[in-house]
Amino acid sequence: MINVALLGFGRIGQMHAENINKNKDLRLLYVYEKVDRLCKKAKNLYNCKIETNYNKIFIDKNVDIIFISTPTNTHIKFIEEGMKSKKTIFCEKPLDLNIDKIIKTFKKVKKYRPKIQLGFNRRYDPGHFSIKRDLKSNKIGKLEKIIITSRDPSPPSVSYLKVSGGLFRDMMIHDFDLCRFYLEKDEISEVQAFSSSFEPMYKKINDHELAVVTMKSKKGVLCVITNSRHCSFGYDQRVELFGKKGMLISGNKKVNATELYNTNQSSSEKPFLNFFIERYSDAYKLQLKELVSLHKNKIHSRSTYEDGYIALKVANACYKSLKLKKTVKL
Amino acid sequence: MINVALLGFGRIGQMHAENINKNKDLRLLYVYEKVDRLCKKAKNLYNCKIETNYNKIFIDKNVDIIFISTPTNTHIKFIEEGMKSKKTIFCEKPLDLNIDKIIKTFKKVKKYRPKIQLGFNRRYDPGHFSIKRDLKSNKIGKLEKIIITSRDPSPPSVSYLKVSGGLFRDMMIHDFDLCRFYLEKDEISEVQAFSSSFEPMYKKINDHELAVVTMKSKKGVLCVITNSRHCSFGYDQRVELFGKKGMLISGNKKVNATELYNTNQSSSEKPFLNFFIERYSDAYKLQLKELVSLHKNKIHSRSTYEDGYIALKVANACYKSLKLKKTVKL
Amino acid sequence: MINVALLGFGRIGQMHAENINKNKDLRLLYVYEKVDRLCKKAKNLYNCKIETNYNKIFIDKNVDIIFISTPTNTHIKFIEEGMKSKKTIFCEKPLDLNIDKIIKTFKKVKKYRPKIQLGFNRRYDPGHFSIKRDLKSNKIGKLEKIIITSRDPSPPSVSYLKVSGGLFRDMMIHDFDLCRFYLEKDEISEVQAFSSSFEPMYKKINDHELAVVTMKSKKGVLCVITNSRHCSFGYDQRVELFGKKGMLISGNKKVNATELYNTNQSSSEKPFLNFFIERYSDAYKLQLKELVSLHKNKIHSRSTYEDGYIALKVANACYKSLKLKKTVKL
Amino acid sequence: MINVALLGFGRIGQMHAENINKNKDLRLLYVYEKVDRLCKKAKNLYNCKIETNYNKIFIDKNVDIIFISTPTNTHIKFIEEGMKSKKTIFCEKPLDLNIDKIIKTFKKVKKYRPKIQLGFNRRYDPGHFSIKRDLKSNKIGKLEKIIITSRDPSPPSVSYLKVSGGLFRDMMIHDFDLCRFYLEKDEISEVQAFSSSFEPMYKKINDHELAVVTMKSKKGVLCVITNSRHCSFGYDQRVELFGKKGMLISGNKKVNATELYNTNQSSSEKPFLNFFIERYSDAYKLQLKELVSLHKNKIHSRSTYEDGYIALKVANACYKSLKLKKTVKL
Repeated sequence: MINVALLGFGRIGQMHAENINKNKDLRLLYVYEKVDRLCKKAKNLYNCKIETNYNKIFIDKNVDIIFISTPTNTHIKFIEEGMKSKKTIFCEKPLDLNIDKIIKTFKKVKKYRPKIQLGFNRRYDPGHFSIKRDLKSNKIGKLEKIIITSRDPSPPSVSYLKVSGGLFRDMMIHDFDLCRFYLEKDEISEVQAFSSSFEPMYKKINDHELAVVTMKSKKGVLCVITNSRHCSFGYDQRVELFGKKGMLISGNKKVNATELYNTNQSSSEKPFLNFFIERYSDAYKLQLKELVSLHKNKIHSRSTYEDGYIALKVANACYKSLKLKKTVKL
Repeated sequence: MINVALLGFGRIGQMHAENINKNKDLRLLYVYEKVDRLCKKAKNLYNCKIETNYNKIFIDKNVDIIFISTPTNTHIKFIEEGMKSKKTIFCEKPLDLNIDKIIKTFKKVKKYRPKIQLGFNRRYDPGHFSIKRDLKSNKIGKLEKIIITSRDPSPPSVSYLKVSGGLFRDMMIHDFDLCRFYLEKDEISEVQAFSSSFEPMYKKINDHELAVVTMKSKKGVLCVITNSRHCSFGYDQRVELFGKKGMLISGNKKVNATELYNTNQSSSEKPFLNFFIERYSDAYKLQLKELVSLHKNKIHSRSTYEDGYIALKVANACYKSLKLKKTVKL
Repeated sequence: MINVALLGFGRIGQMHAENINKNKDLRLLYVYEKVDRLCKKAKNLYNCKIETNYNKIFIDKNVDIIFISTPTNTHIKFIEEGMKSKKTIFCEKPLDLNIDKIIKTFKKVKKYRPKIQLGFNRRYDPGHFSIKRDLKSNKIGKLEKIIITSRDPSPPSVSYLKVSGGLFRDMMIHDFDLCRFYLEKDEISEVQAFSSSFEPMYKKINDHELAVVTMKSKKGVLCVITNSRHCSFGYDQRVELFGKKGMLISGNKKVNATELYNTNQSSSEKPFLNFFIERYSDAYKLQLKELVSLHKNKIHSRSTYEDGYIALKVANACYKSLKLKKTVKL
Repeated sequence: MINVALLGFGRIGQMHAENINKNKDLRLLYVYEKVDRLCKKAKNLYNCKIETNYNKIFIDKNVDIIFISTPTNTHIKFIEEGMKSKKTIFCEKPLDLNIDKIIKTFKKVKKYRPKIQLGFNRRYDPGHFSIKRDLKSNKIGKLEKIIITSRDPSPPSVSYLKVSGGLFRDMMIHDFDLCRFYLEKDEISEVQAFSSSFEPMYKKINDHELAVVTMKSKKGVLCVITNSRHCSFGYDQRVELFGKKGMLISGNKKVNATELYNTNQSSSEKPFLNFFIERYSDAYKLQLKELVSLHKNKIHSRSTYEDGYIALKVANACYKSLKLKKTVKL
């Protein structure tokens, strides 16, 4: 049995706890959390040790995997601790909002080579992954364009938005990483960004409601990402790969395969699965399964520290492009 | 230029006139019609000769093609006249409601071998035909089942229904023929029928609102046909061919490829094309094109007198099955 | 915690064990199984008691629910035992192949009113159930037709087929029940059947490869069921409800929402989920959840002993229709 | 009868001739064309007057409509002639490649207010127009994003490409105009462009194989256009409108509603209609119908000279953005 210590029992932490609990290879040994109410909830649900001093967790030899889903500005600290105590590490995105902190720790990561998996869940989605497999097996020839649509059903709270790092670092970072997943050895070299806000709130907190980013890779692949903080018809998640010989689409998943036909229309109810926990539930399970394999040295990580670093670099380039109204080189 | 005499300028006759007029190989020379108002309409639209004595049409050497869309009980008479005067003949379905009349004339047809095309328009539909081509090129292996759904958007007038010959001879006759189109040399050998009526009117006139017929061919292919005299969501026309190695579907055609997504649903407006004139508009054009080729001796007829005869035999077997509550052999 | 004794650890029993094990309200206390290899497997996976004498299970006061997935001819015996010892009972379909045995026990069932849930899994499928809910909320008006397509990806072994009771009692029994699920108080009153076999094996064992059954309810609803023992493109499961004001479809579920477009075609890989364990995985979970509620007296059973009895009566009527080549009244 | 003089009998001119010939309100009186072979073809097909001196056409009082489908650099000249002789004018896009010429003539257009229809065929497409109607009837609330995909099945000849004005002026000009069609009073205010070429030929002739343009309107609507000069799976034409309350899509039209299911996949043949003549055949007919109404003073033009002017301004801004690697203001 592999023992897991989960740091952070917020919304996403709770989902990870549930998946860890259901995974037959894993045992949820510790939950580290500061909010009392959440500590009780964790205790109730999983009968695990509740720890408010994280040092005790890192020195406990029984802990195999550290699962980091605490606030973003603590990620790097816990990765450092995990490295020191030679744990296998899972860390939620983004690594940090401060690129310098990331770079500093990157040096140690390159030296000590810990087993780290970044929480870029979309890389593990069966649909998004299946079109990557088809791309690699040459079903559409040479890749020429990547078009990603990603829209959240509704925005998080204003208090969350204020500390989130902004749309590009918090939300579109998934899409930057997903482009890189398909680009493989090819890297993003130039970036252009546009944003727009219709709700006045976004301007007040200096964030954006909608954004479109276009990017060009070294080999000339064009990438288009469109994001929206709201989407009345659900969690809209689509990827389109256009190649010399064809096109691959990974589309939205529907709740049911039911249809209604009447005098006015043919229709499907509730078009899409509501949000990431439902839409990417399979992805989260596969991600966890790979974490187990990573821990057992059976595979390389599908989403590395470096992936987390570069995704943030791209996000920062977008802010620069927005500000300077220029194409920004990476 | 090939000269056409159109007999009957009712709803379907008017559609044929329009198609004849648009076809570059054809000239609409005569319209034979007894209703004054319709004669004027024909004259106005096509500036053709209006004739109320059909004999003059059949003896006119300039007439190449006789187009029969008069009431059903006159079809056989005009086919006989057409044969005598060696015209190329198009005749609307059904041939007649009296099988004995059909058999009697069939002997002459076999002897004189006129060029006849029956109005089984679905044989000419690009979608329905494309799955036949795929079936023949072995895309689904050996044919095992044919499933046809055919629903009219709304019933014709009661006065029409009373003289129509009933649902099996008037409406489902198209589907019997379409099954035979896919079965080719294999023939229908056994028939079972069920019907149902929810609107009281149908029982009064001794007709049926809905019907399901199952048939078995000599080689064991199962055929299922479901018909309805009403369909709130349009003209529902679907064919499914199930084979040893796969399935082919020829589905409904939509007006536009547009979709609306909102909070409650994803939907398409006006699901299907409204009725046969719109749904089978391409079929009618291809049918006419083949009539020209038939006239020029370039091809054999795709829908023969014999096809019209056998489809009526199957319809009659359905009535027998309904009455006797038995499987009826053909 | 509710304790479950699972009788029978074959293919379907193993799936039930897995679901019982994952359900937080249930504990798998016993597995009753005669095959040694399977007993070991059960012990290994679930660390439960293995019992080869079923009497010990029924007298154990700790057992709350009896889960019957043994061979068909033992179902009635175990239901009787369960009734006597006042257990909550789940029983796989069909109840038995001998209608007289079923009727005899039905009298006791009516008297002692045990909590019984029959394994008609499709009643619990979210898609099939969602169109029933829409039907009841009048989205398509008065129900007029039910059309069910059900095709297995490939036939079971010949040895299984020989004792299965035949296509109508073993396979189409699900579809008879599903029609009744939508018909509610209305009952099936007449039946017609056709069958066909292309593989010679089916005739040797006196079974059928394909079948089409049409039925009429007391109120005049027409039902069409088509079954096939093989289906090259997967487990084909579709339900269509046609009503006065519209149509509802519960279609096939796809593995992924991915598409490939190339020079020749647009396509989706692996069209459907492979077989009942995958296709109806949600249904099995919901069925189990309802069994818990039934045990706690919170609900009535969605699939009763009577449902199991009538479905077999319909299956028997189909055999009679086939043999006599007649419409058979129920 | 309204008399038409068609200037230019190339590929697109021939299509217009065919549509003019089929329109019952119009007569093709003249064809002006310099290539001998094409003059003979026009004469043969339509038995119209062939004229190589365009002056004779403009002074002929019988000519009502001038249809300009000559090479781009002659458009402005013929518009000027048409204005002088008070003809109703249809002109193919683009107006010209030289913006100064366009501006100069624009002054006269504003003064003399001729009846002009620009050949922006997509504005007349039933699908693209139907989502505009839905947008205006508030089906998706306030418009926030427009996403257009437009890919040609294969590039035109190199000789054509050399004089075409380049991808932005020749091809994407349709999409700039289509954005403006949905934006209505709101105008495009900022532009960013990226392009890429994989075939070496494009760099040689200083053109682009693929391009992505993002634009922002004065009110903050984000527009994304992706173009490709090749598309292995046909003529890919999609429009997506994203609004506060929903999304509208006008998708690709398929040849047939047929599907094949087999062991590996479900598929549709020949995904899309091949090219603009087939895809926009209904649009061309509706455009011509509106030209007749415009001539009769019944409506205002749906696609004006000004629309042609602004679309070219946007195209020019794209070149500037590409060159300067900056966001360009309009």
